Amino acid sequence: MAVNRLPEGVSAEAFAAACDEMRGAVGDKWLIRDNLQHLNSYRDSYTPGDIDSNAPSAAVAPKDVAEIQKVLAVARKYRTPLWTVSTGRNYGYGGAAPRKAGCIVLDLKRMNRILEVNEKHAYAVVEPGVTYHELYEYLQRRDIKLWADPAAPAWGGVVGNTADRGVGYTPYGEHFTVQCGMQVVLADGSVVETGMGATANASTRNLYKYGHGAWVDGIFTQSNFGVITQMGVWLLPEPPGYRPYMVTFPKEDDIHQITEVVRPLKISMLIPNAAVTVGLIWEAAAKVSKSQYYAGSGVMPESARRKMATDLDIGNWNFYGALYGPEPIMDNNWAIIEESFAQVPGAKFYFAEDRKGDAAFDYRAKLMRGVPNMTEFGLLNWLGPGSHIDFSPMSPVTGDGALQQFHFMRDTCHEYGVDYIGEFLIGWRDMHHVLMLVFKRDDEAHKRTIKELFKVLVGEATSKGYGEYRTHLDYMDMISGTYNWNNSALARVNQSLKDVLDPNGILSPGKSGIWPQDDRKG
Amino acid sequence: MAVNRLPEGVSAEAFAAACDEMRGAVGDKWLIRDNLQHLNSYRDSYTPGDIDSNAPSAAVAPKDVAEIQKVLAVARKYRTPLWTVSTGRNYGYGGAAPRKAGCIVLDLKRMNRILEVNEKHAYAVVEPGVTYHELYEYLQRRDIKLWADPAAPAWGGVVGNTADRGVGYTPYGEHFTVQCGMQVVLADGSVVETGMGATANASTRNLYKYGHGAWVDGIFTQSNFGVITQMGVWLLPEPPGYRPYMVTFPKEDDIHQITEVVRPLKISMLIPNAAVTVGLIWEAAAKVSKSQYYAGSGVMPESARRKMATDLDIGNWNFYGALYGPEPIMDNNWAIIEESFAQVPGAKFYFAEDRKGDAAFDYRAKLMRGVPNMTEFGLLNWLGPGSHIDFSPMSPVTGDGALQQFHFMRDTCHEYGVDYIGEFLIGWRDMHHVLMLVFKRDDEAHKRTIKELFKVLVGEATSKGYGEYRTHLDYMDMISGTYNWNNSALARVNQSLKDVLDPNGILSPGKSGIWPQDDRKG
Repeated sequence: MAVNRLPEGVSAEAFAAACDEMRGAVGDKWLIRDNLQHLNSYRDSYTPGDIDSNAPSAAVAPKDVAEIQKVLAVARKYRTPLWTVSTGRNYGYGGAAPRKAGCIVLDLKRMNRILEVNEKHAYAVVEPGVTYHELYEYLQRRDIKLWADPAAPAWGGVVGNTADRGVGYTPYGEHFTVQCGMQVVLADGSVVETGMGATANASTRNLYKYGHGAWVDGIFTQSNFGVITQMGVWLLPEPPGYRPYMVTFPKEDDIHQITEVVRPLKISMLIPNAAVTVGLIWEAAAKVSKSQYYAGSGVMPESARRKMATDLDIGNWNFYGALYGPEPIMDNNWAIIEESFAQVPGAKFYFAEDRKGDAAFDYRAKLMRGVPNMTEFGLLNWLGPGSHIDFSPMSPVTGDGALQQFHFMRDTCHEYGVDYIGEFLIGWRDMHHVLMLVFKRDDEAHKRTIKELFKVLVGEATSKGYGEYRTHLDYMDMISGTYNWNNSALARVNQSLKDVLDPNGILSPGKSGIWPQDDRKG
Repeated sequence: MAVNRLPEGVSAEAFAAACDEMRGAVGDKWLIRDNLQHLNSYRDSYTPGDIDSNAPSAAVAPKDVAEIQKVLAVARKYRTPLWTVSTGRNYGYGGAAPRKAGCIVLDLKRMNRILEVNEKHAYAVVEPGVTYHELYEYLQRRDIKLWADPAAPAWGGVVGNTADRGVGYTPYGEHFTVQCGMQVVLADGSVVETGMGATANASTRNLYKYGHGAWVDGIFTQSNFGVITQMGVWLLPEPPGYRPYMVTFPKEDDIHQITEVVRPLKISMLIPNAAVTVGLIWEAAAKVSKSQYYAGSGVMPESARRKMATDLDIGNWNFYGALYGPEPIMDNNWAIIEESFAQVPGAKFYFAEDRKGDAAFDYRAKLMRGVPNMTEFGLLNWLGPGSHIDFSPMSPVTGDGALQQFHFMRDTCHEYGVDYIGEFLIGWRDMHHVLMLVFKRDDEAHKRTIKELFKVLVGEATSKGYGEYRTHLDYMDMISGTYNWNNSALARVNQSLKDVLDPNGILSPGKSGIWPQDDRKG
């Protein structure tokens, strides 16, 4: 199955020459082409689609900016497109694989220095290869009382996740909002410091986001206009107190009232962290697998779901939040939060001491205080050796919206024989409804079903006004196509920026639906 | 003195034809050229420089997007550059006047609709002509319990101030951070919705900032890549309690310790609003004028300053902050804040009941709860019929930094015979040191002094690593020139964006130092 493709429009000779020159730039070990086992690690083995359609031709791992510049020069010379990854763990969205087969993966994992942790001002500056786990360990070893908000899986990269506008679960859960300062290498090899970093002896590079003149950091996120080589991220000072809690709700349609309760608590920041209302199966999957409750194929019957909920003492919905601060503030806020949720009949309240040994509560409690871990990744085993793609439409924080979304997504899933595994992640004023579509990696028929289901869901969500904030490689064009107001005016802006910043189209073609000129002609 | 310049490189005939066609687009009344009194209102009568160097040739005020598109078409046809303003009250930074003489002011004041105020989700959508005062009145009339964070002077425009990355004094004081959703008309007349606004039936246009793909909103701030025609801004839900406070400190060098005390309180959000440490004269100028204490020329002597401080019961530094929330939370936070500030010898604490009838406390208390007013504008009368430009370098929140800045700025001011009128405005992790350089509008020698002083200050601040976040027309090139890391790599990005988004260079040439191609050649 391992196909060693060439980049489109590049001859075998040119490709070989490009690889030789890149090898010369980074050293033998760091240009991967002929070692197919190694090269295959850059494919998206979690894809529900055709793994060959995202297969890279090679991978190159520079160790610093100078080597990146050399690699870019080769790519420009031979027109060999690169696909940039930081730690390459963007699973569910494509892992380390390129959008377009034949790209050379530009793997930045060797650039893994934590360049600065500033305790006084509470920020870190990291290179792209630094994982959340590594940043956490760094802070722990030095007993630094600052939290980095992690992505759910610990192996995620700080730079890659932030650049992909990922979210976490502490009060700093909106990663791009707490980003400050970027260094970017453009396709022509020039190195840019954004914001205050462009001043001499910059004393506020990682303290004030916006600098002077056009603020450009945003155009380097979810895009392909440059290679981010450094990023500043703000860290949350450890609060004097921390109390994670869980509230369970018995009925499926409770999601309406739960969401109405949460909105004002979030906007007023009584719930300061990115809180989440977790559906039954998502909550259960950290602890049990489907086969323990249902041996048949297709959707788990309601009776089995009910037994599972009873056994595990969880609800059809399970809200996770946390209190932060000194005791009197936590007490004050909890009184309001408890009273609010108690309006929902059957609501039950739990703190850590009530859920000892509960793997789901435990990993949520960790995430909400910035401790990265790998538990959520284990959810994939719900069906056995699993994989997943996420469908994550953005919606207003309203009961009507949540119920409407839940109903059509559950019902559509069930039509396709797929369990609804979802959660509602609520930010300041937005709600990501994340539907995890889990499938068996070795079941081709199931993968086809998931793909069809995904398309139906996108169509349905789009018609109802819910756009996606992030998606898998195979759906980037489709999702980008839903941002089509006024004859796709925004996409045309992106294309203009692409053409002027990367005229040869060598950087991550197709990322977020942004294609270089040559590819648009096709 | 009224010079009716032509745009550079445009013949009198072409200019006349352009004006005629623009008049046809907007109606007789809204193309201002021959009525010099009206046209002069678009000049920067507050400038310390040559008022002619920023004199517009005409002004045009479209009423909607369709008229903007017509005006843009005429500007492209005759290459007559436009200078976009919203309410045109950007005083201290240039008012409504263009960077380059001869531009036609594109005045958006007629587009002054408040398109939506959403109580449930706490946001507003406004057109560029809406002032903070108008938005406030709208909320008051309908008894809507939401606060819009205003610029200090009430007549400032919401869109213009946010696009210029202005700051205010409530917890939503960083205006661009709480912006969500933009509509922009590009130079070619195409209309773009950014972020979620680009989706069909967009239900989250003003709830989630970042959308999908490159996030472009930032490039339309402090720049000239498009004309913003709509903007969403988040509003702060009225907290259940509000207690503004003031802490005075006796000695000039207390600024060191004050700043060290404030930093952790800000980062931990115990002080949730954009707090400010106000220097003696700034604080006094809301209540008295210089001549009441000192009749001589030059710097006010220390003895007079001391008497003024005693009379007014204020300090050499005066810290303003506010408590927000339910009583127990305010009590808890106040205990920590009071204990922290009490470490500074001589600190005195005041609440509203202690400062009844105090104009300075009163307007600060208003600003910190989102009530726009005009008091601060009155500070200009410190010297009589005054004007000002602001020098506002950005610095880390450290005692060393604050003291170093205060010393060199005070000493340099005094060398030039100018009073130090400053404040330190502290955001989440940044500090703007705002130095107000007040001068008499009719005193040419004094204006020359101020200009020279300004240049010296910029040089000094730059060498110490303090970049400016915003500046007056006459200094945009100078400040932009200090963001020169790596052979001005960031400026070259801005130029690339300018060239591709506005190839004819018709939009606000020179804004923030960003010039179209033709102007760069010169």
